[in-house]
Amino acid sequence: MNRAMRSIDLNCDMGEGFGIYELGHDEQLLAEVTSANIACGFHAGDPSVMRRTVQSALRHGVAIGAHPGFADLAGFGRRQMQLSVQEVRDLITYQIGALQAFVHQEGGRLHHVKPHGALYNMAAVSLPLAEAIAGAIADLDSSLILYGLSGSQLIEAGRAAGLKVASEVFADRTYQADGTLTPRTHQNAMLHDASQAAEQIMNMLHTRTVRAIDGTVVPIEAATVCIHGDGARAVDFARELKKCLLAEGIALNTI
Amino acid sequence: MNRAMRSIDLNCDMGEGFGIYELGHDEQLLAEVTSANIACGFHAGDPSVMRRTVQSALRHGVAIGAHPGFADLAGFGRRQMQLSVQEVRDLITYQIGALQAFVHQEGGRLHHVKPHGALYNMAAVSLPLAEAIAGAIADLDSSLILYGLSGSQLIEAGRAAGLKVASEVFADRTYQADGTLTPRTHQNAMLHDASQAAEQIMNMLHTRTVRAIDGTVVPIEAATVCIHGDGARAVDFARELKKCLLAEGIALNTI
Amino acid sequence: MNRAMRSIDLNCDMGEGFGIYELGHDEQLLAEVTSANIACGFHAGDPSVMRRTVQSALRHGVAIGAHPGFADLAGFGRRQMQLSVQEVRDLITYQIGALQAFVHQEGGRLHHVKPHGALYNMAAVSLPLAEAIAGAIADLDSSLILYGLSGSQLIEAGRAAGLKVASEVFADRTYQADGTLTPRTHQNAMLHDASQAAEQIMNMLHTRTVRAIDGTVVPIEAATVCIHGDGARAVDFARELKKCLLAEGIALNTI
Amino acid sequence: MNRAMRSIDLNCDMGEGFGIYELGHDEQLLAEVTSANIACGFHAGDPSVMRRTVQSALRHGVAIGAHPGFADLAGFGRRQMQLSVQEVRDLITYQIGALQAFVHQEGGRLHHVKPHGALYNMAAVSLPLAEAIAGAIADLDSSLILYGLSGSQLIEAGRAAGLKVASEVFADRTYQADGTLTPRTHQNAMLHDASQAAEQIMNMLHTRTVRAIDGTVVPIEAATVCIHGDGARAVDFARELKKCLLAEGIALNTI
Repeated sequence: MNRAMRSIDLNCDMGEGFGIYELGHDEQLLAEVTSANIACGFHAGDPSVMRRTVQSALRHGVAIGAHPGFADLAGFGRRQMQLSVQEVRDLITYQIGALQAFVHQEGGRLHHVKPHGALYNMAAVSLPLAEAIAGAIADLDSSLILYGLSGSQLIEAGRAAGLKVASEVFADRTYQADGTLTPRTHQNAMLHDASQAAEQIMNMLHTRTVRAIDGTVVPIEAATVCIHGDGARAVDFARELKKCLLAEGIALNTI
Repeated sequence: MNRAMRSIDLNCDMGEGFGIYELGHDEQLLAEVTSANIACGFHAGDPSVMRRTVQSALRHGVAIGAHPGFADLAGFGRRQMQLSVQEVRDLITYQIGALQAFVHQEGGRLHHVKPHGALYNMAAVSLPLAEAIAGAIADLDSSLILYGLSGSQLIEAGRAAGLKVASEVFADRTYQADGTLTPRTHQNAMLHDASQAAEQIMNMLHTRTVRAIDGTVVPIEAATVCIHGDGARAVDFARELKKCLLAEGIALNTI
Repeated sequence: MNRAMRSIDLNCDMGEGFGIYELGHDEQLLAEVTSANIACGFHAGDPSVMRRTVQSALRHGVAIGAHPGFADLAGFGRRQMQLSVQEVRDLITYQIGALQAFVHQEGGRLHHVKPHGALYNMAAVSLPLAEAIAGAIADLDSSLILYGLSGSQLIEAGRAAGLKVASEVFADRTYQADGTLTPRTHQNAMLHDASQAAEQIMNMLHTRTVRAIDGTVVPIEAATVCIHGDGARAVDFARELKKCLLAEGIALNTI
Repeated sequence: MNRAMRSIDLNCDMGEGFGIYELGHDEQLLAEVTSANIACGFHAGDPSVMRRTVQSALRHGVAIGAHPGFADLAGFGRRQMQLSVQEVRDLITYQIGALQAFVHQEGGRLHHVKPHGALYNMAAVSLPLAEAIAGAIADLDSSLILYGLSGSQLIEAGRAAGLKVASEVFADRTYQADGTLTPRTHQNAMLHDASQAAEQIMNMLHTRTVRAIDGTVVPIEAATVCIHGDGARAVDFARELKKCLLAEGIALNTI
């Protein structure tokens, strides 16, 4: 791999407030990342939050993605819901369309789609669900890029639907031998140190593998890195990670 | 006025089901009208209902409009809510965008926007609200036609925003001296007979006026006629009205 | 079993409208059943529908039960959602309390609780979920009767929590060898004939068993029979079933 | 007035989070106030937030009130909605019942009801609305105390319905000649200094009047003081106000 070509996207979930409620550190993180996944009003976000977040992202020159989720504000879209594939297709279409309207009004262009929370996780392992999502996107605007877990069914379905895909990796999470993330309940689930996180990303870019917690070497593709926007140290972590990556000669670019 | 040129649009609110709940007689009415105002998920409609309604409208060759309303499913968008103009702007944009996505996916093109219920009524008399709605539409897609009450602030605001507008009249309702509809609580609010309704429309087209219940002659513009989709006799009424209008040489055409 | 003692409860889900939307044939079915399960505003029902349904049930002298479900109006509470047991406990408590307020205001007394849809099905097979539900009820009012699928974890958990329970059977559904209902997708899932349905109920009462579709004889307890309130023939079916049961000397009584 | 008898209640809105969203400083404020108004799931709060807030209030020995509002989470119940009096009656009943269930389960007893936001303000000036609220409470549990703006229609309606009422005053807001609060948009709307706020309360207790911003002396009744729970300085303000009041020999007691 040519050192000069090494480049990665940093993405972060944003616009997750609702009405009077605020969440995350959007303004500060928009200064650090290269793409923003904006909630679309179902698991978080409301029309006014969406517009303001789109405006901020455009001001920062950050690529805008739709971040659709289950219609479960009380559970923040993190609780599995058993929907039919048609319902998922309709749910996704609705939310992307709603965000697209704000992006158009504000003079931007929608860049990608990344499903949220339980929908993201379910689509990683269910091909029918993944196909419903990928199909909805392809039918709506085939130039949209689909963000999904590296190695997941969602990435497969995206490719099969003719979409450009972006394999997502996690900087601050460890991996298991099967390529999935170590559950948060495990002791070694998290990398708390930004330099360690940067090193994991570097290794992914160099070797196209990641070392799992049991030592297994797992193939992985790293096109975009998920930065968590919540938590007290989110902004600091993002800044440090970015500094480490830049110091290693990795360019940070939108896909 | 040249008789041959007389033409009018018949519009009807549709897609007003939600989940398991059904409302109206969409399939039958789509065979009668020339344009459909489709609920966008806030006062009625859900993503799956929206897609199916868009599909039906396209099959019938009926022009598709977005029918955004207040976020009040329990009140069917008929209860006034005091939103800021910015909130209205955002509310409208979100809903139009959501519907637009289904229309695009299904191979159609969004034709118009008609606000629903309390939002329609409030925008008829509040210029700031009317401007928020017209502005949101113009900024999103200036080719969209704005449907509003004939003589209302909404029509004014639409014109001022550079939009094509369609002045709406009601076939089955009587008018007051100030050009507003006689409230439903009044004894003479309704025209129950389709031939009477057709005559009222005919007069509007011929004379560009309507005779109010007190006899006053009120100027009115009639570009589109609202057909009510609920009620046991809705379909029959629509059919009879249409027959009467056609018998009088009025062409029924989308705007 | 003494013939004179044979008695059963007929229950039906009611109050399933929402805002402008109507569902079911509540008034007519209240004349046929002995207990009503009233939706509590999450999967169906709204505060005004709840009050009116409580008033109707009291007028008909029918026992009133709370019918809590998932917060999923779009899915009518029929889609599984993965909630924590604490969330289920809180969800149940909230909904029962809300209905109880209407019952108290209208001069009645809440009689039972029957979970709805996916929550009912999940609680039939998940002991932790069943315990969360039973515990919430017992802590709120230990005189409330818990309705659950005959032979289910919910019935077990109810008994363990010290609640009076009512084992529910289905008149118009067939059973499988393991005591569960034949899925609706199967050819022989339904009994369409009321006299056949009555015969199935009679056999349950006489023999405390049901013959599964493969011929297996399965033990079953039948304290209450679920009558479906939707569908064009719901009222007729209820009337015929009731007539057959009465003709066989079965008394219809609330538990 | 006997100095020794002077006593006042300090109340604060609480439980205003929703799902993942947090709001206010409930734990700290529960240590300062004598009564808590807990959101009931419509304008804020969800079943799990409600239970946890009830538990905290009981731990602190603070009197628990229901704080029902409009079904408008996006607007935090602060936007006026035009509901019928019957709808308001049903809305109030539902929410009080839901909270009551948690209070009962946790071993407490519901103490009062204070409408929230736009509903509070509308009920202050609309007698029919005030009567709907007071009537719903009286019919549900006539021992509940109704908190309302001092001098408002709500207080009148509460008394007329036979309820014990608590006239509410605001420590950090100034008053106009007609006894209403100076709108927040005015320059002199707020008292930023806790000692000034305490002095205003003291004067209210001593003289049963308040000096309006134009100097007019307005009669006022002060049974309970609203402490705002949001804002960075909310906890400090509450502590200082309390200290000042105690220093002046005012006892802080629940009504």
